[in-house]
Amino acid sequence: MPINRAASTSVDVPRGLAGVVVTDTSLGDVRGLEGFYHYRQYSAVELAQTRGFEDVWHLMVHGELPDAEQRAVFTARTAALRWLPDGVRATLPAVAAAAGRSGPLAGLRTALSLLGAAKGFRPVYDIDREQRRADTVMASAAVPTLLTALYRLGQGLDPVEPREDLSYAANYLYMLTGSEPDAARTRAIEQYLISTIDHGFNASTFTARVITSTGADVAAALVGAVGALSGPLHGGAPSRALDTLDAIGTPERIDSWIRERVLAGDRIMGFGHPVYRTEDPRSRMLRGVAEQFGGPLVDFAVEVERHVEAILAELKPGRELHTNVEFYAGVVMELCGLPREMFTPTFAAARVVGWSANILEQAEDPKIIRPAARYVGPVPPVAVPLMV
Amino acid sequence: MPINRAASTSVDVPRGLAGVVVTDTSLGDVRGLEGFYHYRQYSAVELAQTRGFEDVWHLMVHGELPDAEQRAVFTARTAALRWLPDGVRATLPAVAAAAGRSGPLAGLRTALSLLGAAKGFRPVYDIDREQRRADTVMASAAVPTLLTALYRLGQGLDPVEPREDLSYAANYLYMLTGSEPDAARTRAIEQYLISTIDHGFNASTFTARVITSTGADVAAALVGAVGALSGPLHGGAPSRALDTLDAIGTPERIDSWIRERVLAGDRIMGFGHPVYRTEDPRSRMLRGVAEQFGGPLVDFAVEVERHVEAILAELKPGRELHTNVEFYAGVVMELCGLPREMFTPTFAAARVVGWSANILEQAEDPKIIRPAARYVGPVPPVAVPLMV
Repeated sequence: MPINRAASTSVDVPRGLAGVVVTDTSLGDVRGLEGFYHYRQYSAVELAQTRGFEDVWHLMVHGELPDAEQRAVFTARTAALRWLPDGVRATLPAVAAAAGRSGPLAGLRTALSLLGAAKGFRPVYDIDREQRRADTVMASAAVPTLLTALYRLGQGLDPVEPREDLSYAANYLYMLTGSEPDAARTRAIEQYLISTIDHGFNASTFTARVITSTGADVAAALVGAVGALSGPLHGGAPSRALDTLDAIGTPERIDSWIRERVLAGDRIMGFGHPVYRTEDPRSRMLRGVAEQFGGPLVDFAVEVERHVEAILAELKPGRELHTNVEFYAGVVMELCGLPREMFTPTFAAARVVGWSANILEQAEDPKIIRPAARYVGPVPPVAVPLMV
Repeated sequence: MPINRAASTSVDVPRGLAGVVVTDTSLGDVRGLEGFYHYRQYSAVELAQTRGFEDVWHLMVHGELPDAEQRAVFTARTAALRWLPDGVRATLPAVAAAAGRSGPLAGLRTALSLLGAAKGFRPVYDIDREQRRADTVMASAAVPTLLTALYRLGQGLDPVEPREDLSYAANYLYMLTGSEPDAARTRAIEQYLISTIDHGFNASTFTARVITSTGADVAAALVGAVGALSGPLHGGAPSRALDTLDAIGTPERIDSWIRERVLAGDRIMGFGHPVYRTEDPRSRMLRGVAEQFGGPLVDFAVEVERHVEAILAELKPGRELHTNVEFYAGVVMELCGLPREMFTPTFAAARVVGWSANILEQAEDPKIIRPAARYVGPVPPVAVPLMV
């Protein structure tokens, strides 16, 4: 592994900060060897299978699962925060019009930035813990409204106003399509959303924490995180995994298509993970969710998975390459009728809660994150030449 | 120094990543013991004293100082990019209206995000080096237009259209006030701007690099950097240093005011730096700039500096606490007629070039920056309780 060598007072670390512990956390953990991850001690998969999104959101930002009364209060409170301030709502058509080639996360980035300012968010060290939490909840509650409004405006459709009587997941699908989703699709998306809230220290979570460490407001941190998520190396793959299924096309083409790619050294989208050395627990859960729907897409995905794992085990023995979250997440979102360009934004609609919890934790430790770089250019100083 | 202890495969580093080398760079270096910093081998102070902003901007993003022809081309090209797309311009009143309590950097955050989308910025790994550079230049050239328009709209004034015949610095002051600045003020601000373009690996520069490492577009990285800069621990101090001068009020109150604060353990704004153990070279240069103007504010600032250094040397011997860039930067900006709420935004109008250079350098090394956190909560898993 390449090492950045130290100057006199500096510290050697692996490239990309791989494995470098930048903070302590009580929010959760990813155990790559065990194929397990959790939110505050609870298996994330078990939470997805037994709880609603609001319960897990409450767990992440309040530190505990809600009881019946807390659930009622939190659900009503977050539902009421789905409405946008008039100034933000009126500006969304211009944001949607601008967001063409840069994609829907660029629209969310702008809209969340605007929302934070419209709500008067202030530096995290200038407000108390309650207000910080309230800021994160305000921002998160509005994300589905922003995303779906921007999507519909981009399609030439009017935004659908939020409904407070629906769950977070149901209201998201409702605002996207304009019709109330069935229970199976709502629950499938809800399970996807819960499983996506947090997952260790990825680049967007780290970005949110670095920005928070300066004392900036909650919107600044979330907007930075959305920016990081928009990077293809981070949040870009669920729709690409599905594009792979499309490209293969039929079961009899699986073998030749995959072998060709693997032998050419290409990465197969939807397979492999930097941390898991077993099956990705999210993948396993989402396969189960998909199998409840059944149908040709699910059958084909399972077939592709089986073939790819066998081929990878043969061609890259010992590498333990399995489907990652993106493979079956794409299948589930497709089954639920989400357009592919909304796959990564839907990820953001869950991860905003994880970013929020990380922001709140980071703000408890007011120390700026300020690493170093090593100058490797020619030795200074050189006199500035006379102007020509 | 507190150390984050390692899990099995992780690496111990100091808290806040202090001294941790996260990347190699050819852009420059801060030498705290020597009181020296440079941009690509050239003393930044010497550049500020001998060159225009456009020359140093060219140095940072093209890798070399321009010759006469390159200067003419780059100056004309960047001047032409001061105009905003119609959709962005039409949206600024709404952005300005929202940006009240969150401050002018929240407005810049939103406006830059919108601009990047309107210009169709794409992921940095999907475009070539030339296009990446063009994206950074487009964004940087528009920052003064965005900042001054948002400021004026917030004051109930119409924005002033850019002029292509003025230098970056002169046009900035012109768009802010509506009248052409005199040569002395233009040159003073230009020297401040040049000296502020880059300065080692601060939190906003690091944020820009983390976001870039995911492959996100240039606007995503710049917007994240603006967010980090908006944190009071990072970019918030030039106006506060001046507030300190106001609070002291008269020369005879200096001694008692400062002693009281130091003995109470308060930090004196404008003094001390995490890296410099000598006088901050920016401070020395900007004092010189201020002294060319003279007048009661400058005399008072010099007097305060002299007293504070003496008191700090007495009460905190061996700590080498001197004025930092913020002290005389505030004085210079005040002398040039900048409103205090525009001090940190003016910092951003220079630093955007440094962020740009860092983005371009980071994009040459497509490896995601993805550190780790250490879970310190109670041992998982705990079964998810039945819902109540």
